[in-house]
Amino acid sequence: MKEGFTYTPHHDLVTPSSPALDAYIGEIAAMKEGAAGKYSVHESSLFLPLDEKILAEAESQGEKYVSAQLRYIVVIGIGGSNLGAKAVYDALRGTYDPARPQKPKLVFLDTLSHDTFRALDELFEARVEHSEQVLINIVSKSGTTAESVANFALLYRSLAKRLPDIASRIVATTDRDSLLWKAGEKHGWGLLAIPLPVGGRFSVFSAVGLFPLLAAGIDVREFCRGAAEMCRAITSPDETNPARRPAEELFAAMRSGCSMVNLFYFHPELESLGKWERQLIAESLGKEKDVTGKTVHAGITPLVSIGSTDLHSMAQLYFGGPRDKFTLLIRASETKGDRIPEEGPLSDIVPGLAGKETSAVMDAIYRGVSAAYKAHALPHGEVLLSTVSSHALGQYMEWRMATVMYLAKLMKVNAFDQPNVEDYKSVTKKLLQ
Amino acid sequence: MKEGFTYTPHHDLVTPSSPALDAYIGEIAAMKEGAAGKYSVHESSLFLPLDEKILAEAESQGEKYVSAQLRYIVVIGIGGSNLGAKAVYDALRGTYDPARPQKPKLVFLDTLSHDTFRALDELFEARVEHSEQVLINIVSKSGTTAESVANFALLYRSLAKRLPDIASRIVATTDRDSLLWKAGEKHGWGLLAIPLPVGGRFSVFSAVGLFPLLAAGIDVREFCRGAAEMCRAITSPDETNPARRPAEELFAAMRSGCSMVNLFYFHPELESLGKWERQLIAESLGKEKDVTGKTVHAGITPLVSIGSTDLHSMAQLYFGGPRDKFTLLIRASETKGDRIPEEGPLSDIVPGLAGKETSAVMDAIYRGVSAAYKAHALPHGEVLLSTVSSHALGQYMEWRMATVMYLAKLMKVNAFDQPNVEDYKSVTKKLLQ
Repeated sequence: MKEGFTYTPHHDLVTPSSPALDAYIGEIAAMKEGAAGKYSVHESSLFLPLDEKILAEAESQGEKYVSAQLRYIVVIGIGGSNLGAKAVYDALRGTYDPARPQKPKLVFLDTLSHDTFRALDELFEARVEHSEQVLINIVSKSGTTAESVANFALLYRSLAKRLPDIASRIVATTDRDSLLWKAGEKHGWGLLAIPLPVGGRFSVFSAVGLFPLLAAGIDVREFCRGAAEMCRAITSPDETNPARRPAEELFAAMRSGCSMVNLFYFHPELESLGKWERQLIAESLGKEKDVTGKTVHAGITPLVSIGSTDLHSMAQLYFGGPRDKFTLLIRASETKGDRIPEEGPLSDIVPGLAGKETSAVMDAIYRGVSAAYKAHALPHGEVLLSTVSSHALGQYMEWRMATVMYLAKLMKVNAFDQPNVEDYKSVTKKLLQ
Repeated sequence: MKEGFTYTPHHDLVTPSSPALDAYIGEIAAMKEGAAGKYSVHESSLFLPLDEKILAEAESQGEKYVSAQLRYIVVIGIGGSNLGAKAVYDALRGTYDPARPQKPKLVFLDTLSHDTFRALDELFEARVEHSEQVLINIVSKSGTTAESVANFALLYRSLAKRLPDIASRIVATTDRDSLLWKAGEKHGWGLLAIPLPVGGRFSVFSAVGLFPLLAAGIDVREFCRGAAEMCRAITSPDETNPARRPAEELFAAMRSGCSMVNLFYFHPELESLGKWERQLIAESLGKEKDVTGKTVHAGITPLVSIGSTDLHSMAQLYFGGPRDKFTLLIRASETKGDRIPEEGPLSDIVPGLAGKETSAVMDAIYRGVSAAYKAHALPHGEVLLSTVSSHALGQYMEWRMATVMYLAKLMKVNAFDQPNVEDYKSVTKKLLQ
């Protein structure tokens, strides 16, 4: 398999071709001509991976702020401001990374948590002796996200006590001219702009995702290259378009009674990728009103499952319970594995295990699950990644963004707003003042 | 508020009283007389917190294996074998714990992951110099869980190279006379039995949960005391029974079209508690057949959401999307907080934030969400914990186990089996051999 992925659907859903979708794909394809650097509509987010300037700006800040001494990059952001970077970082570096000494590493502050903040503060107390070792990247599209501003204030106070030049170690990623942008200008911070029509959940190929990832040493050029390949594919008008069918399938699945889409990743390191995709689906498609203003309460609820872990907690429901889910089984070839010893105190209690590579055991589990989905005739699709690499992740994430936009078009909802997020904020604001 | 929690429902569901449930609660109450140490039926799991012998056995192994030198306890287990211990540990110690130096700490190996295993192996290479510093607790009810046996084999080989007496640092928690038990006897390991009728998802108050938690220094006596209080309450025949109404409510919610129960915890440290509860609900209620053998495809799909994080990714769907969820909002009083500085480069960009305690900000967010659920008339219940403590967690977990058993009775399904988990295993076994 070439670097990338294959998608194979398994279901008997009828997926009629939609003229509205044809027209929409045509519009997006037309935008692509000379797309680089022009951000006029929300769909422009799909062309971020083609924009050499966005990448060059992030790299230029990287040259300024990243040295061999850098140990920690703190990403302060929540929702679309950190889920993309965390997805790619955890996929490539593993979730046990904080315990490992090597490489500059990303740490994330999202919600307010005394325990998390204290643990981080203690870690820095022990391991950060001068300011070159740390970099703060505050990410907020609006520039006024309460949790991020509060986390920043706490971390800044703590670090400023010991590192008087901490102001020289801050990069803000935000909309140009937001209050955060202006504060950054005033204090001489690094500044990276998010193109205005690019929303949080579609921003991973902007500085929001690219800057912290490249600062951590991840190959973001390859990440964008994978996405750019996919960008060409998903603007194709014909049947080779890899996002069209999956969108039509999910639409058909919803109409036939599926209220959930189960994103079932067979690698624990991909759980954060699942949380990125969960936001993408939930926030883009979960809508009180359709584009005409009619109350519709549309949407499909995304689940994130992890193999083999969740086979031991969720499989009973998935195989035996209500038939109300469309499932995406996602598995990558593993290039690394550990050989299970042939000798040892438990070597004879599970037949066929001793001497196997762990990756072969996971493959056997995956194939058992895939067979069970078929045996139960549960609607699903299989995504087989060549490997978990920057390139394949770029392809995958671009593919999912396009699929969700196309699905929103079929559902006649606006993929790019989130009006109901305000529903809790008025009371919160009143209580804070 | 006394240590513990309050539950307040908010919905207009009709919840008729069920004679079958009355009878079931009566049966369980009758079992309680002289319950300690007798495990004759699955419901006996509810009486584990009253069993002084279970606790004493775990403590006795603790005295043998835990010294001031102990740094790491590796729990090798998956599903019901680790979710309970991880829930309590993460709730009380926080998820950033691996980076912190103090206290013996729990690390978990569940699925097979090269990255996770390597990270752990490197950590031990760097920080474990002699065998007193490490303890392996392999947990498997059947004794033959493939992932756990494989993870054990890998870790054992690696540690045995440097620590020749590693066999003296292994405790196996399993069914008496399983293959794992027999191997443990042969090699002189510590052994802790799981009472036969206690299934994984109901085992947190057996040695499965108690031993690793007490080895990590968590007050399991208080944990069991909280659960014992709740055990008395949930066997009450009258309206004071705190598990009856929530079971009837969820049953009514399912009948009125809710296909999901959203467990919405307003503390990031409670995400693992959510994963424990997710298994409890999914595996106990998701059933292909009812107790008469009729094909029913019953069940309700649990979601785990975290406030405030998921407000920035899922709230749009929850408030605007399909009205197909019953939500449990779970919030604890915070005894610890950080005061947000009044001075600083961003002090004036979010009104009302500077000078507030972070816990007050989270309270304001919580109250905004609670108000929005009411404004949208979405069916939900509010659980307010006095604080996140061993005692309150014991109460909460016992309460949820009883609620799920009562709900299974209303749904006429067997809460204690998981026949469909086998659906993928036959192919997997064939491929491994």
